[in-house]
Amino acid sequence: MKIIIAPDSFKGSLSAIEAANAINKGIKNAFKEAETVLLPVGDGGEGTMETLVATTGGTIRTLTVTGPLGNQVEAVYGILGDDQTCVIEMASASGLHLVPEGKLSPLKATTYGTGQLIKQALDEGFTSFIIGLGGSATNDGGAGMLQALGLQILDETENEVGHGGGELNKIKRIAFHTFDKRIKDCSFIIASDVQNPMVGLDGAAHIFGPQKGATASDVELLDRNLTNWANEIEKATGIKLHDRPGAGAAGGIGGAFQAFFPVEVKRGIDVVIEYIKLDDELQNADLVITGEGSVDHQTVFGKTPMGVAQAANQRNVPTILIAGSVGKGIEALYDFGVVSVNSIINSPMTLKEAIENAEELLESSAEQVIRSYFYQSVKEKGRSLT
Amino acid sequence: MKIIIAPDSFKGSLSAIEAANAINKGIKNAFKEAETVLLPVGDGGEGTMETLVATTGGTIRTLTVTGPLGNQVEAVYGILGDDQTCVIEMASASGLHLVPEGKLSPLKATTYGTGQLIKQALDEGFTSFIIGLGGSATNDGGAGMLQALGLQILDETENEVGHGGGELNKIKRIAFHTFDKRIKDCSFIIASDVQNPMVGLDGAAHIFGPQKGATASDVELLDRNLTNWANEIEKATGIKLHDRPGAGAAGGIGGAFQAFFPVEVKRGIDVVIEYIKLDDELQNADLVITGEGSVDHQTVFGKTPMGVAQAANQRNVPTILIAGSVGKGIEALYDFGVVSVNSIINSPMTLKEAIENAEELLESSAEQVIRSYFYQSVKEKGRSLT
Repeated sequence: MKIIIAPDSFKGSLSAIEAANAINKGIKNAFKEAETVLLPVGDGGEGTMETLVATTGGTIRTLTVTGPLGNQVEAVYGILGDDQTCVIEMASASGLHLVPEGKLSPLKATTYGTGQLIKQALDEGFTSFIIGLGGSATNDGGAGMLQALGLQILDETENEVGHGGGELNKIKRIAFHTFDKRIKDCSFIIASDVQNPMVGLDGAAHIFGPQKGATASDVELLDRNLTNWANEIEKATGIKLHDRPGAGAAGGIGGAFQAFFPVEVKRGIDVVIEYIKLDDELQNADLVITGEGSVDHQTVFGKTPMGVAQAANQRNVPTILIAGSVGKGIEALYDFGVVSVNSIINSPMTLKEAIENAEELLESSAEQVIRSYFYQSVKEKGRSLT
Repeated sequence: MKIIIAPDSFKGSLSAIEAANAINKGIKNAFKEAETVLLPVGDGGEGTMETLVATTGGTIRTLTVTGPLGNQVEAVYGILGDDQTCVIEMASASGLHLVPEGKLSPLKATTYGTGQLIKQALDEGFTSFIIGLGGSATNDGGAGMLQALGLQILDETENEVGHGGGELNKIKRIAFHTFDKRIKDCSFIIASDVQNPMVGLDGAAHIFGPQKGATASDVELLDRNLTNWANEIEKATGIKLHDRPGAGAAGGIGGAFQAFFPVEVKRGIDVVIEYIKLDDELQNADLVITGEGSVDHQTVFGKTPMGVAQAANQRNVPTILIAGSVGKGIEALYDFGVVSVNSIINSPMTLKEAIENAEELLESSAEQVIRSYFYQSVKEKGRSLT
């Protein structure tokens, strides 16, 4: 009996890896002989690097880089178990979590550190990259990252413009000859769930600026500056990012990748599912268990449990879903091979209690649902659950 | 696929019948073609009459009788679907719920109304009785009930003693010739879970007096009075109730039944299981679902789910348990054919929210656990859940 354990994180309580471990314990409580394969998925957003590294048996390295506000920060990047693929989450060098409360400054924040991480990996000889976007504190259109990799972004005095989205209006010319020449021979998979264009009302400034601390007038300024940046990129490369889907991801760094890197853009969850080799494992699996913090009628349009269930369903493997909170309208999931949707909550309790006890609750609920699912087939074989 | 639905009530939210209906809906959501048999069990305590009448397709009748405090109250009694068995819960005529808050008076409260219910049923020709004890407001040793059925309970002036446990010290003689002669030709099953004797530190007054409003000095007085009553019964019948297990049930009415009636005393749950014919239905059943408000390590020593699971296990039918609240230490239940223990709670919520939404929550959880349990076997037959 082979069971694949492929959960998202339980937001606010368990990482995807912790969730997978708890589910595994519960399965073994019910059914000692079950073969389990732990493939924590995450949601392809923040935490993806850690998940991929752990699942493939890779390693994590650290590097001191320029943080979003210009101070030095310790960032991490991962090497997958194949020793060939470098995974970088831009948030590690340029993320919101690096900015102290009240100090958000999207006019100044830079992606320079993300470029430093890439440069370091190039220096180490890596040619295959996965870059996770999301969680950024920046709105600089990726200009900082490109500068760290040697691109000259010049003002009317032929000097480098400074850091942050507030400087992008000064750009008059982009010079390529110093840009890192190794990049064109690499492959970059960009993991991003954002389809927004670089500029306009659906663009990086309007949609994501406010959560990075932009006031209404900052948003207008940033949008104008990003437009100048997109204009200059178009002049230099012929690539028009203004309306391009995904160019507005992570403060416009998505556009920078699309214009200057050999990229393939994928949904985060699809990148994870591919790299953890879920499909290979599914071929002789009997059951998949996935889960996340909250499941409701939106889940069918969502990422992790649906991505996992769809992949499993294509191999005719059923999926059991476990969530912290189960809402209404889950019936739509049944069409994707979902057996049942189960909550970890086993008594009236507060959200705080649920979060504090999430590990134990998840273990227990996995045990019970596995007992229900396998009781008959185990009994038919003249054996019994443990 | 035959599924027996045999829950207890979910205390404070759903009667056993409501719980069975909710579980039935959930099963049908999952598995339209399932054959379901609704056998709500209750716990053999209060509510048993209603459960037995509903399950057997019987009827409920009403009668105005003397309530515990002497005022007239409307009491009910049930006739089972066999049209031969009369079910009386003594609480209907003499129960705590009939006494307004702050008016509890165990020295005065009488079981006279319970006797009137029995007399009425005898007048209607019934000879087979189930009497449910429990929930009484009384501590009169069943004297009032016996008086309603013609027994003369006399003081030193050869007058009838008055109502309530406070009068039992006055009894000097019991006269039988006026006692209802039909009783000896009837059968009485006494459904009671109480093993306490009539008197002493484990007796009716000491153990149950305080919850009926007895002060410490009341308890002493009632215990002395019950001792006099037990002495007089011993003189008159040769039956010694003082230390007899169950004689202290429901303020000592258990003893009155044992001394003056042809009785068989059974645990309430066993009476229910017998009369709803659970065992007959189990013979070709595939699964039993039971449940109650709260399940934990005590449940294995408890009544309804364990009684149901044990009966099912003897027929090799597995049992799924659903509860409002699931605590620790439930693994002991697995030895009794329990497949899994599932909570109705599907999100962090207060007890109040759980109670208000219990019906819908129970329906949903039954649907999910049935999906988990039957998914494989239904699929093997080339069909699918609904």
